[in-house]
Amino acid sequence: MNPKKNIVHLPVYQPGKPIEEVKRELGLKEVIKLASNENPFGSSEQAKLAIQNELANISIYPDGGSVQLTAAIAEYLQVAPNQVIFGAGSDEVILMLARAYLSPGDETIMADETFPQYKHNAEIEGATIIEVPLKDGTHDLPAILAKVTDRTKIIWICNPNNPTGTINRQDELAKFISEVPKHVLIALDEAYYEYVTDEAYPDSLALLRENNNVIVLRTFSKIYGLASLRIGYGVGHPDVIRSVNQVREPFNTTRFAQAAALASIKDLEFLNNCRERNAEGRIYLAEQLDRLGLSHFEAHGNFVMFDAKIPSQQAFDGLLRRGIISRARWQYYPTYIRITVGSQEQNEAFIKALEEVLAEAAVLG
Amino acid sequence: MNPKKNIVHLPVYQPGKPIEEVKRELGLKEVIKLASNENPFGSSEQAKLAIQNELANISIYPDGGSVQLTAAIAEYLQVAPNQVIFGAGSDEVILMLARAYLSPGDETIMADETFPQYKHNAEIEGATIIEVPLKDGTHDLPAILAKVTDRTKIIWICNPNNPTGTINRQDELAKFISEVPKHVLIALDEAYYEYVTDEAYPDSLALLRENNNVIVLRTFSKIYGLASLRIGYGVGHPDVIRSVNQVREPFNTTRFAQAAALASIKDLEFLNNCRERNAEGRIYLAEQLDRLGLSHFEAHGNFVMFDAKIPSQQAFDGLLRRGIISRARWQYYPTYIRITVGSQEQNEAFIKALEEVLAEAAVLG
Repeated sequence: MNPKKNIVHLPVYQPGKPIEEVKRELGLKEVIKLASNENPFGSSEQAKLAIQNELANISIYPDGGSVQLTAAIAEYLQVAPNQVIFGAGSDEVILMLARAYLSPGDETIMADETFPQYKHNAEIEGATIIEVPLKDGTHDLPAILAKVTDRTKIIWICNPNNPTGTINRQDELAKFISEVPKHVLIALDEAYYEYVTDEAYPDSLALLRENNNVIVLRTFSKIYGLASLRIGYGVGHPDVIRSVNQVREPFNTTRFAQAAALASIKDLEFLNNCRERNAEGRIYLAEQLDRLGLSHFEAHGNFVMFDAKIPSQQAFDGLLRRGIISRARWQYYPTYIRITVGSQEQNEAFIKALEEVLAEAAVLG
Repeated sequence: MNPKKNIVHLPVYQPGKPIEEVKRELGLKEVIKLASNENPFGSSEQAKLAIQNELANISIYPDGGSVQLTAAIAEYLQVAPNQVIFGAGSDEVILMLARAYLSPGDETIMADETFPQYKHNAEIEGATIIEVPLKDGTHDLPAILAKVTDRTKIIWICNPNNPTGTINRQDELAKFISEVPKHVLIALDEAYYEYVTDEAYPDSLALLRENNNVIVLRTFSKIYGLASLRIGYGVGHPDVIRSVNQVREPFNTTRFAQAAALASIKDLEFLNNCRERNAEGRIYLAEQLDRLGLSHFEAHGNFVMFDAKIPSQQAFDGLLRRGIISRARWQYYPTYIRITVGSQEQNEAFIKALEEVLAEAAVLG
């Protein structure tokens, strides 16, 4: 009854404290969660209506192949339906890629501070993990390329990178992809791509049209505000999508997630509004962090990572006591905090709390 | 860019035709789907209300650990919370068990005609699959025991068995479990247990209290009528649940599924009503199949498998032309059809259609 040797060291997921519990423990009336890069403006009203309309089918299995949603996304992205696969969040697309491609002895390359699910799933599959240090908080593409061997199966590029928020731009990414051997699958995780306003951000769909070994991952959890529903997708060459489909569970996404996603991609007004308000929030936070003399990475998603200049756990605790849940404890950035861009009101509350935490630290100092 | 060798032969899931398409193609006004063992009476109204109440949290990630739901199920079943794990349907619990325990070289034992996800997931993990023939449509426990070796990792017992609907009873199962070596995990899949009315059906929770190597799988997709939402669970020893948790995705079930399941377990009236109406439907179908001279397995779930005495594809097509979607093409039962127990009206429509199909076959035959 022994589990696989390669999973016994893996950490068990520790659920975060519910907001209600944080309120009770700390005696707070209001708690603002800026920890998980959720959309502070909720979702499209159309998504909520779609869920209500789907209640009549609650007892019926979802369409396992997400046929209608796949057709809609394929048309939206101008790709063929057999180039698209849906997962329970892009998390599950990552899982399926690892499960379809990685075996013990294979190598997989990723940044040393990036979205943890690449490493987690590669460890479960028993693959050898090669972590490449970020350079100024950004994926170091030449250093990654230098690590490629005959055994390399997947390279993971998170763009914008979570947690730093930095991007790799079109020219360097196109050059990198052209230099990576064709036996290596390149997974471009673009969970935050709808938030990017930089004009030099890669046109990843053009890159995958020209390179069969590129798969692009996107999600409805971020700008579309459907994190509760777990739905994301991968776009790639039909052969890659076919292999991923072979390890997909028959009914891996819910009926409600499919309906809400389908409604959401039609509501461009909500999307554009969220993108604009997020861009304004990023500017506000950057200005305020500059004013406080705190360095921060160039933010391209809906979050900002900055140097609090005190141990990040101390900053996290100080913010939490003031009702702000942030994200801390980064392996390579021990004094950094990642904060989601909230509504203007939330952003101002965060800056006020941060100033208090810094003042308190200076006194204690 | 080659996928794992052990997945290249796996079939890609072929989505079934939507009911609307079947209607259009065959010129039918009404189509009755009795193919997927869904609940013909829908779900508890409380589940639908819970979903509507959750709409305000649509953009917020679910509680990854399903803490509230786990506590409720643990209390309901009188086990500890660390004995319970939730998955996106019991399908995902099967996937997680395979992913946590099976490696190439390991052996896993299952019936030769049973729920296909045990084999599918074992194949992905590269384990050696030992299939044991059913005996009179029932798991042959002594034959399964005889196949156990030092390399056996998991035995899968589907009880009631899908597709035959038969059960293994308390005494034989308790004896079997006592004889299986303790290094073997025994997965008791009880997706249909709430439908069972036979008094000799095993008390699996008592069995797992006495045997650390038993895990029981259950689901909200069947009698609870939440198939659209993908939620099921496993109950076992804390050490087993811990290993499964290590391969669980951080947010593997949706906020709506958790809320609907939590509301559903409190609505015992809906549960009891569905159980009674299903038991009546089973009796009706058995009587009608007897009247038509068609042998059938003893049905304990919400479905009946019977011998149509003509090739099952022919029976399937004949039923489909009359607006009834059934399930056919069983590897070891080439003349059998599996039909979900529907509402009384649906059951009568099915019997009427079946009589026409058999009459047509007699004329053609």
